[in-house]
Amino acid sequence: MERFFISAAATWAALLVGGTLSAQSLEETPADSRLARSRPAPSAVRGSQFPRLNADGTVTFQITAPDAQRVQIVPRGTGNGLGDEPLDMTRGERGVWSVTAPVRPGFHYYQIAVDGFRGNDPASQTYFGWAQETSGLEVPDPELDFYARQDVPHGDVRIVTYDSRVSGGPRRVFVYTPPGYDDERARRYPVLYLQHGAGESERAWTEQGKAHLILDNLIAAGRAKPMLVVMENGYATRPDEQSLRGQNDRFAELVVSELVPLVDGKFRTLADREQRAIAGLSMGGGQAMRTGLGNLDQFAWIGTFSGAIRDFDLETSFGGALRDAEEANCRLRLLWIGCGTEDRLIDPARQLHARLTEHNVKHVWFEGAGSHEWQVWRKHLHDFAPRLFPGAK
Amino acid sequence: MERFFISAAATWAALLVGGTLSAQSLEETPADSRLARSRPAPSAVRGSQFPRLNADGTVTFQITAPDAQRVQIVPRGTGNGLGDEPLDMTRGERGVWSVTAPVRPGFHYYQIAVDGFRGNDPASQTYFGWAQETSGLEVPDPELDFYARQDVPHGDVRIVTYDSRVSGGPRRVFVYTPPGYDDERARRYPVLYLQHGAGESERAWTEQGKAHLILDNLIAAGRAKPMLVVMENGYATRPDEQSLRGQNDRFAELVVSELVPLVDGKFRTLADREQRAIAGLSMGGGQAMRTGLGNLDQFAWIGTFSGAIRDFDLETSFGGALRDAEEANCRLRLLWIGCGTEDRLIDPARQLHARLTEHNVKHVWFEGAGSHEWQVWRKHLHDFAPRLFPGAK
Repeated sequence: MERFFISAAATWAALLVGGTLSAQSLEETPADSRLARSRPAPSAVRGSQFPRLNADGTVTFQITAPDAQRVQIVPRGTGNGLGDEPLDMTRGERGVWSVTAPVRPGFHYYQIAVDGFRGNDPASQTYFGWAQETSGLEVPDPELDFYARQDVPHGDVRIVTYDSRVSGGPRRVFVYTPPGYDDERARRYPVLYLQHGAGESERAWTEQGKAHLILDNLIAAGRAKPMLVVMENGYATRPDEQSLRGQNDRFAELVVSELVPLVDGKFRTLADREQRAIAGLSMGGGQAMRTGLGNLDQFAWIGTFSGAIRDFDLETSFGGALRDAEEANCRLRLLWIGCGTEDRLIDPARQLHARLTEHNVKHVWFEGAGSHEWQVWRKHLHDFAPRLFPGAK
Repeated sequence: MERFFISAAATWAALLVGGTLSAQSLEETPADSRLARSRPAPSAVRGSQFPRLNADGTVTFQITAPDAQRVQIVPRGTGNGLGDEPLDMTRGERGVWSVTAPVRPGFHYYQIAVDGFRGNDPASQTYFGWAQETSGLEVPDPELDFYARQDVPHGDVRIVTYDSRVSGGPRRVFVYTPPGYDDERARRYPVLYLQHGAGESERAWTEQGKAHLILDNLIAAGRAKPMLVVMENGYATRPDEQSLRGQNDRFAELVVSELVPLVDGKFRTLADREQRAIAGLSMGGGQAMRTGLGNLDQFAWIGTFSGAIRDFDLETSFGGALRDAEEANCRLRLLWIGCGTEDRLIDPARQLHARLTEHNVKHVWFEGAGSHEWQVWRKHLHDFAPRLFPGAK
């Protein structure tokens, strides 16, 4: 009889059988009551037992580094759910290092530092953040299920590629199509353009943000209109450009001159400003304001999530698009501004909110707990999306 | 005026401007004539200058690890294009380690070892292989453009999720739709099911294999019929199964009872055995034989790329489906068997080929240079796909 020969892969192929390794691996782990009711994080790679989420709200990392002198878990960014300081790991038997630390729900970027080398945790999935593949830790929130995969119809995410004249070369865009898109072949849909933050990519809103699941759940509950969500890569320098300076203008140019026509040509959209929104987080929040307010003939709905907007000036910012409150209120169907209260950008965001309020520019202001992190942006999308396109079919 | 505040991300945001850093980084690199005509590998993350492909056919890796005692590049697998032995890196100034080594064209998995810790190169993209996120090095072949992105119409790749009864829980499948799929709304397409190897995932055939580009190019040249390509994750143990033993049977069950109905229901397919193929590499090659030969009412075209098939017995293997040559030749439209001559699986593959020849079971035998590696499997797909579905509309 034939057998399946798994080549050099045999060792780790065995690792893929959750159950078997499970038992083994826990036997090898020092007895620790926390582990009794613990489970691997959803962001751990298949078959890996670590990082492990413990019942007491802590997480245990485990790494093998036999000859290392110093090993740390390094949370990335400020206001990280793992804390802002590196966590020293303790050396155990056979070169296995571990550390247990408190963690709050949400998605947290981290790295591993081994004798000064900054790399990723082989046990975790990587996410594109900080301009490189970076380990991520997903900690479910027992009180929130709006971004969990639920028993509802699911949309797809399409990876679409095209060649750009603006940035010169191929680009990739992720497009969420809502449940039913393939079946209801005459139906047309409104579109939300949704951008990631600096150092992230077109993968971020689905992999880190769970945007597809948030929309699936909102649509199933009748709380959001079925819509397309278009997620591009926010980096768009011209081939000959040497500086970051023009980057956000290039991106706006790319969206209006290439991306919107591509999407309206390829998908069954409602190709109209009233059915087209743009939002983004951090750098992408600034890009959404710049692109949306700079092209009000194209966009009527704008959202900025922890937006990177400083020194807002009513007269000059965004080409003065908010200078005339009456006109802005007439043209904008929604201007949505949100920020976490622990975010370093909360002050400029509050200033923006205050200035717009004072000047009677209608907008939604969303202030909630959290720092510059994905858990906040998931909540932002969850509040923003239901407000869009009330007139859409 | 507003400025875009890039938060803590400022440092590496600057890194994303290819040009500026380019110049800087090369100034800091010791003068080396190899670098003069060198360029970052296509698998390097955006803005990174390393790994660098040099004009003399070598690659230069560079890593920062200030306090490390020993740093190595570790090629993974046997017959790796970087060689099979770890490459010692040399410590330079400011904790920067580097090594230059010969490399052949293709895609090569590698890791970095820092004082016994095995991790990834922060400068490279990661690919799911070896049951974890693993660094990959893509080295273009100047003599081959069949898997390069060319100026032809491009299909999309859809990320589809569903809930499986067989494996219990959500699964993800990547589906390539050929150019024109969205426009020619009455047209139906044949389907190729295409599986990755052990330790890889549903991402592999596009990210490592460039299957979407191979199909785009073949279709544009009129050499392959427009077809869907369905790429699933080959791991499908039952929730209660503790062993790998039943894994390939479960996968076959999943394909026939859940995946094929899902694809035929969701996409405009030609839902017929004559228009349905299954192929795979290594472990996936064994799965393709088992699934295809075990379900000849569902599949008429089968391919095994460096397939993990040992101890082939004409009488008993694959339920004896090849025992009766006349019947097998009648039912199979194609049985395609390929292997690289440097692959450790070449002997069992040649034995399979010899046994089938001797027994007059019609098949295509494809033997070519290369080891157990993606460059071979790209060539396999490139030979296999044009042979499929000659009768398809």
